Amino acid sequence: MGLMDASQKPHDRLAAWLADDMAAVNALIRTRMASEHAPRIPEVTAHLVEAGGKRLRPMLTLAAARLCGYAGDNHVKLAATVEFIHTATLLHDDVVDESERRRGRPTANLLWDNKSSVLVGDYLFARSFQLMVETGSLRVMDILANASAVIAEGEVLQLTAAQDLATTEAIYLTVVRGKTAALFAAATEVGAVISGVPEAQVLALRDYGDALGIAFQIVDDLLDYGGTDAAIGKNTGDDFRERKLTLPVIKAVAKADAEERAFWVRVIEKGDQHEGDLAHARALMAKHGAMEAARAEALAWVAKARAALAVMPEHPLRAMLDDLAGYVVARIA
Amino acid sequence: MGLMDASQKPHDRLAAWLADDMAAVNALIRTRMASEHAPRIPEVTAHLVEAGGKRLRPMLTLAAARLCGYAGDNHVKLAATVEFIHTATLLHDDVVDESERRRGRPTANLLWDNKSSVLVGDYLFARSFQLMVETGSLRVMDILANASAVIAEGEVLQLTAAQDLATTEAIYLTVVRGKTAALFAAATEVGAVISGVPEAQVLALRDYGDALGIAFQIVDDLLDYGGTDAAIGKNTGDDFRERKLTLPVIKAVAKADAEERAFWVRVIEKGDQHEGDLAHARALMAKHGAMEAARAEALAWVAKARAALAVMPEHPLRAMLDDLAGYVVARIA
Repeated sequence: MGLMDASQKPHDRLAAWLADDMAAVNALIRTRMASEHAPRIPEVTAHLVEAGGKRLRPMLTLAAARLCGYAGDNHVKLAATVEFIHTATLLHDDVVDESERRRGRPTANLLWDNKSSVLVGDYLFARSFQLMVETGSLRVMDILANASAVIAEGEVLQLTAAQDLATTEAIYLTVVRGKTAALFAAATEVGAVISGVPEAQVLALRDYGDALGIAFQIVDDLLDYGGTDAAIGKNTGDDFRERKLTLPVIKAVAKADAEERAFWVRVIEKGDQHEGDLAHARALMAKHGAMEAARAEALAWVAKARAALAVMPEHPLRAMLDDLAGYVVARIA
Repeated sequence: MGLMDASQKPHDRLAAWLADDMAAVNALIRTRMASEHAPRIPEVTAHLVEAGGKRLRPMLTLAAARLCGYAGDNHVKLAATVEFIHTATLLHDDVVDESERRRGRPTANLLWDNKSSVLVGDYLFARSFQLMVETGSLRVMDILANASAVIAEGEVLQLTAAQDLATTEAIYLTVVRGKTAALFAAATEVGAVISGVPEAQVLALRDYGDALGIAFQIVDDLLDYGGTDAAIGKNTGDDFRERKLTLPVIKAVAKADAEERAFWVRVIEKGDQHEGDLAHARALMAKHGAMEAARAEALAWVAKARAALAVMPEHPLRAMLDDLAGYVVARIA
C-alpha cells in the first residue's frame, strides 16, 4: 500500500510516514523503561506499552516537529516523554477507576496490584522528566510541567464531579482538557517549539492538539454509551457504572422531566443500578437527542482543529493531520 | 532562647536561623498548593502539609544555600519543590502501605480515599516540577529528575523485596537511598548548585545529605521496633505488620537458627502473625545484637555525613548541620 493511499486510515498513513522516527521512539522507550534494581518496573510497563496502543500522542509530537522542518533528534526524546506521561496516567487512572480491562487486556492493577501501578506510574513520570531535561529546552519543560499539572487537576476534578448531577458542560470541558486535551496540545506544541518556527505556528499546532484532544474525548465518551466491546477494547458502559458525568449524560439530564430526573438521581447520584438501567439511559439520551448534540460538539472541535492548521505551510503531514481530525469523529459516523 | 543556645535541638536551631526563609517557603507552598478548579487538592494537601511535619528537607536546601553564601531567591523555590516531592511521596506511600496514621493523625487515604491520595500526589509532583523549571537551572532539574527516578525505583524495589527473607543488606541500602537519602542528597546538592560554589563543595553537601538520609532511615526503622507511639507519631510495629525487610530484621534473620528461621518464615514470608509475635521478634533482635549492630551502622553514616562537611567553610550553619547529624542517632541513644 502506498504511503499516500487515501483508503488507509489517517493514523496508519501518519505511522507509515513517520516509521523511522517511531522506531527510534520505541527503541528509546524500551531503553528507558528498564530498571537496574526493580524488574517489576519493566514488567508492568511492557504490559501496557506493548499492548498495541496507537501511540497517537508521540506521533503528534513527531508529526508537528517534521511538519515544522525539524532536523535534530530531540523530537524522539519528546515523543517518548509524552508516551511515558500518558502511560503513567493510564496506570494511575486504572487504580482510581478500579478498571479491569484496558486495550482489550486485563489492567496492571488487576494482574499485579494497585501498589505496583501507583509506584511504576511514579517511576514513568520521573523518567519522562529526565528525558525532557535532556532536551535542554526550558520552554519545553515549562509546557510539559504545566500540562502535567492540568492533567492531575482535571483528574481530581473528575473524581469530585463524578456522581454530581449539577456538573455543567463547562466543568466537563475542564475535565476533558485535563484528561486528554492538555497532553495532546503539549505534544504538538513541543514539536513546534523545538523546531524554532514563528510563534503563530507554535500556537496553531497547540490549538490543533487542544481541539483534537477535546473532539477525541467527546467521541470516546459517546462510544462508551454506543460502541461495542470489540470496537474500543474496553467495557462499554464503564462510565455509566462509574457514574461519570460525561457530555451525553449532562445533555440528557438537562432535558429530563421529573420522572427521568429521578432515574438519573438513582443511578448516578445514589449509584443504585440494576439490569436494564444502562439500556434505559441510552433510550433517554436518544429521546433527547443527547448523542447527536454531543456529536455536533465534537464536529465543531474538529473544525477548529482543522482551521488551526491553515497557517501551517502546505505539506503531506499537514494533510494527514487534517485527515486525522476528520477521522476522529468518523469513528462514530 | 538565644539562636545559638546549645541546649536547643539542632533542628530547632536551624529553624530559628532560617526562620525568614522558612516563612517564605511556607507562603509559597500555600500559594502553589491551591487549585482553581479542584478544591479537593488544597484540602488533602493542607491536611498533610500543615500537620506539623518537621520540614527537614526544605530546611536542608535552605541551609545548604545559605552556608554557600547564596543571596538570590531560588533557594525558596527549591525548598518548596523538595517539600512538594516529599509530600507527594507520602501520599502515595500511605496508599501503598495502606497506612492509617501519619504524623499522629489519620492519613489522607483514610479521611478521603486512595483515589484522592493518588491524584493529589500526582498534582504535587507536577507542581514541584513547575517550581523547579522556574529556577531556570538545567543542572538543578537534572538532579531532581534523577532523584525522582531513584525514589520511585526504591519504592518499587521495597514492594518486591517485602516478605522476601533473601533480602540482603545491599538491597536494603538501595531501598533506603530511594525512600529517603535520594531526596535528602538532592535537597542539599541543589542548594549548593544554585550558589555556584566550587564542585568539591557541591559534592560535599550532596554526600552529607546522602549519609544523613541513610542514618535517618536506619534510625526510623529501628524506632519502628523500639519506639513508642507517642515518640514517632505512627504505629510502632508497622514495618513488622507490613513484613518489611528492614535492617534489624535482616541482621536477626542472618543469625537465626532453624527454629528462629521458621518463625521469620511464618511471620514475614507467610504473613501469619499472632499476638506476641512482635515481642518475640524484638527478643530475637536483642538476642543477636541486631539493634545494636544496626545502630552502629547508623553511627558510621553519621560520621560520614560529618566528615563530608570538612571541606565547607566555617559557618554557624555548618556547625548546625554537624549537630543535626549527631542528633539523628541521639533519638535512639
